[in-house]
Amino acid sequence: MITSTRLKRYLIGKPMKSGQIEGEKLSKLKALAVLSSDALSSVAYGTEQILLVLMAAGFAAVWYSIPISLAVLGLLLVLILSYRQTIYAYPSGGGAYIVSKDNLGVPTGLLAGGSLLVDYILTVAVSSSAGTDAITSAFPALHPYRVLIAAIMIVFLTLMNLRGVTESASVLAIPVYLFVASIFVLIVSGTIRYAMGDVHADVPQLGTTVSGISLFLLLKAFSSGCSALTGVEAVSNAIPNFRKPSERNAALTLVMMGSILGAMFIGISLLAYGYGIAPQEKETVVSQIAAAVFGRGAVYFAIQGVTALILFLAANTAYSAFPLLAYMLARDKYMPHAFMIRGDRLGFSNGILFLGALSAVLVILFHGDTENLIPLYAVGVFIPFTLSQLGMMIRWIRLRPPGWAPRLAVNTVGMLTTFVITMIFIVTKFSQIWMVFVFLPIVIWTFYKIHGHYRNVANDLRICADTDKPEIKKTTVVVPVAGVTRVVMHSLGYAKSMTDNVIAVYVGFDEEGIEKMERKWEEWDPGVRLIVLRTSYRSIIRPLIKFIDTVEWKTSETDYLTILIPQFVPRNGWENLLHNQSSLLLRAFLLNRRDVVVATVPYHLRQ
Amino acid sequence: MITSTRLKRYLIGKPMKSGQIEGEKLSKLKALAVLSSDALSSVAYGTEQILLVLMAAGFAAVWYSIPISLAVLGLLLVLILSYRQTIYAYPSGGGAYIVSKDNLGVPTGLLAGGSLLVDYILTVAVSSSAGTDAITSAFPALHPYRVLIAAIMIVFLTLMNLRGVTESASVLAIPVYLFVASIFVLIVSGTIRYAMGDVHADVPQLGTTVSGISLFLLLKAFSSGCSALTGVEAVSNAIPNFRKPSERNAALTLVMMGSILGAMFIGISLLAYGYGIAPQEKETVVSQIAAAVFGRGAVYFAIQGVTALILFLAANTAYSAFPLLAYMLARDKYMPHAFMIRGDRLGFSNGILFLGALSAVLVILFHGDTENLIPLYAVGVFIPFTLSQLGMMIRWIRLRPPGWAPRLAVNTVGMLTTFVITMIFIVTKFSQIWMVFVFLPIVIWTFYKIHGHYRNVANDLRICADTDKPEIKKTTVVVPVAGVTRVVMHSLGYAKSMTDNVIAVYVGFDEEGIEKMERKWEEWDPGVRLIVLRTSYRSIIRPLIKFIDTVEWKTSETDYLTILIPQFVPRNGWENLLHNQSSLLLRAFLLNRRDVVVATVPYHLRQ
Repeated sequence: MITSTRLKRYLIGKPMKSGQIEGEKLSKLKALAVLSSDALSSVAYGTEQILLVLMAAGFAAVWYSIPISLAVLGLLLVLILSYRQTIYAYPSGGGAYIVSKDNLGVPTGLLAGGSLLVDYILTVAVSSSAGTDAITSAFPALHPYRVLIAAIMIVFLTLMNLRGVTESASVLAIPVYLFVASIFVLIVSGTIRYAMGDVHADVPQLGTTVSGISLFLLLKAFSSGCSALTGVEAVSNAIPNFRKPSERNAALTLVMMGSILGAMFIGISLLAYGYGIAPQEKETVVSQIAAAVFGRGAVYFAIQGVTALILFLAANTAYSAFPLLAYMLARDKYMPHAFMIRGDRLGFSNGILFLGALSAVLVILFHGDTENLIPLYAVGVFIPFTLSQLGMMIRWIRLRPPGWAPRLAVNTVGMLTTFVITMIFIVTKFSQIWMVFVFLPIVIWTFYKIHGHYRNVANDLRICADTDKPEIKKTTVVVPVAGVTRVVMHSLGYAKSMTDNVIAVYVGFDEEGIEKMERKWEEWDPGVRLIVLRTSYRSIIRPLIKFIDTVEWKTSETDYLTILIPQFVPRNGWENLLHNQSSLLLRAFLLNRRDVVVATVPYHLRQ
Repeated sequence: MITSTRLKRYLIGKPMKSGQIEGEKLSKLKALAVLSSDALSSVAYGTEQILLVLMAAGFAAVWYSIPISLAVLGLLLVLILSYRQTIYAYPSGGGAYIVSKDNLGVPTGLLAGGSLLVDYILTVAVSSSAGTDAITSAFPALHPYRVLIAAIMIVFLTLMNLRGVTESASVLAIPVYLFVASIFVLIVSGTIRYAMGDVHADVPQLGTTVSGISLFLLLKAFSSGCSALTGVEAVSNAIPNFRKPSERNAALTLVMMGSILGAMFIGISLLAYGYGIAPQEKETVVSQIAAAVFGRGAVYFAIQGVTALILFLAANTAYSAFPLLAYMLARDKYMPHAFMIRGDRLGFSNGILFLGALSAVLVILFHGDTENLIPLYAVGVFIPFTLSQLGMMIRWIRLRPPGWAPRLAVNTVGMLTTFVITMIFIVTKFSQIWMVFVFLPIVIWTFYKIHGHYRNVANDLRICADTDKPEIKKTTVVVPVAGVTRVVMHSLGYAKSMTDNVIAVYVGFDEEGIEKMERKWEEWDPGVRLIVLRTSYRSIIRPLIKFIDTVEWKTSETDYLTILIPQFVPRNGWENLLHNQSSLLLRAFLLNRRDVVVATVPYHLRQ
């Protein structure tokens, strides 16, 4: 016990008082680091996703990446504006769950919440695998240990988050800022070189007619590019984690994040086009740009290293968002109460541990090859996106606050766009995402099952303050005894202090032992009658239970029945192995019987 | 619970009454099957072990196998005679542990007992691996699954033995008898072919001078041959398992086993010599003889198959002997009491399970390559052999019954021989057996540690029937409450029925919650005062423990203190996940405190 407590302290730090929670809240800059790593890391692959789809129509089609990137940028703008509205409308946390539940009803809210929960688990699994891929690409010798590395990463993130929000922010902020800085250095340097006319790439002109292109392909490319937008909802879920004034700080953080993400995304897309870069199997687009701008020197490797790091850290966003969402669902009694408990360091430890455990299981099950989960993960984001915007639309129409019309327009555009993207995902990638339609119903069914249980319990436990009062009855105590020892003496003393109605019960296996016991009891004469049960088997449990049944049947109207179990407690834990643990077994059996109280009278060995 | 009970019934059968034990005892023929598979299986490799050592001096030296086999036969005779004397001297079980403890003192007895216990575990590990080797030699495709196969074998043997002695005897007797029959068929057929002059092998004449031979080599060959004698002690340990008159039946069984073993061993040795067979790496000596006598046809494969089976079944001897020896050690309080309990099928289930588990662990740790454990295993047998004979010598000298002198002579010869063999093992194979000198002291230290604990407990628990009587005090009850619910009402009713001294305790985390609770309590007015504890952390355990400490300190002179924990019991097990398990945690913490009784008041959800 002591060593495990000490280990826990070492790993996650000293327990903190509840009052310290305000100090744990996030400043804007730290929030940006904690909540944006998922969104910002998308820059590392967003442009590439678009180019990959376009290449199906040949290199000439790459110029479409510019209008598509602009469209993604437009969508980002819509999402940011719309989520900004949500933050002010729901200052205590306006994730898709809350907004949908509030405006579209509980089932829709649970659909949004369930999607997001599953999605956060996928985020951690996919990101830690992607980060591991980056590491093993650099050090191929580590390839056999991929699952182990990803699991260690998850354990590390889990521990950091158990330590608490601000502490993990301090550590994890550095790579986020380094990543942003290095991408901007890349964009600026790349643009300067391009402006100086150093780049002589053979690039298809904007507006070139391409024969193989189709609307389907363009839509697919657009939806692939939209995967760069996963993670922007994190801020609106996490408003309660911000320092006061939390909605203002959250809104500013969201805008900051959106601007940085938009600038980096369009910058990379433009450079890719300007430098005439086509996606390659073995080298990422960002890597090709960096190599073209800086050559394969120190700067190049620095950019690659930081990119790998941010991909890995993308998982951290989920560590902030999952426990909060689980808390909200638990508060509404759709998830176990355990998710509402703040741990020693004030984080929702159970949510953090649950997320870590489930994503680790996913990584192990998929042997670290979680790439196939990426479309699943995108759908899991766009379903709640759509529902959340729809909810906001209903809200504007219902409440009609001053200036509601333009806001309704923003959310309507957002809803339509995200809905269309969701449909494109379903149509173009059904074979990869059908699992969503299996898992989501299960998750939602579980929510309802849990809710039903809590409702039943509440009904069952509710009392009427006027008529329901504690009922006083007589007390009968049954003490199973195994011999005439100090443990038994102690238990009988306790029992006799409670009531005069004490029965000692001895289970005998053979006549010789029974006779000996009866003689000893008579000699001792403790003032309690001894009842002997005979059994042909070698377990005391069954005859005792039968006896207790009989006593209960006889006395239940008038008496509370207590089974008093003398429990021998040795000084060292290992010594328990040397003693019969029937008392534990008996206790487990009896706990399932109504109206039988099981009391353990510990006797502590002195030597 | 119900399903696990049903599974257990299916696997090991219905519980049996204690009175059925006589019916479970062994007839001579069944005993032969159960107790001799270890000894008889040695025939499969005994001769080969001798030849392997002799070949170091060239093929010309193989003729020495005849005198050495005769010497082993002589040793077998001595052991059989000497153990026969032990059986009559110790009719209730005369294993090395009992005989040594009785005549040479407890430490020597524990040395013998400890060696044998370790040895039985090794027997199971080595035999199941050897049986697996036989299977994978026949089906090389199974080679990657060796550990799994050996583990399955151990599980199978464990289950058979849990089913009970006679049932496993019925199943396991068949291969033993088949093996004996097939070896005799081999010897008789081989002898007839030899007598008919069909065999024209170039064999070194008996008495040929061999240059490379040395006394050391001959001794080593002899000690290797002695490994064929492991297992003969099994009968003397198992006398209580025999039908009455058990000592007579046991003695007869021992003689039967010795005769069969001796005849098979010398027969194989003679045939090997007569057919001019040298040990080969890829084919066993028995296989070579069988091939020479019958050709590689159906009879040959039948012999091989039965041999593989008996090697595997050799483990079963340990399953009879280990639990009995553990029982004896437990009876003398050197091992946990649990080894004294007869299970549902009247076997010593805990011993059987312990043996199965430990040997499975050995197999897994050594990846099924347990050959290196064989010398260890031989030493583990000859140490108790020697001690047991020495014990018998002391006994004859001490008691001097009629006709003691020749018996003393038998045991003296036996002691000297086994002692010399033990020394030869230590000298010639120290690098393989040094572990014995690490493990045995640990095992014996553990025996003493356990004994000391039981002695302390007994002293501590003993009462004086005249002066030690149950002490009647007042009772104080503390009920931790989390709200105003039916569970709390039920618990308070119980507490008030016990005593007027009831304190309800509420742990509050914030002023708002505390005020609400106090208001509700006042409204309800259950007739019990409510004490509110405030905490800055989020755990109820620490403040509760502190409060209980205070109450205990104030009342311990005059009162028994009871902590009454309202325990909510849902209808389905999974629903426990939805509720706070603080009560379990609190109970675990409190059990280690003197004089605090922990009572659980179950409340069963109706819906």
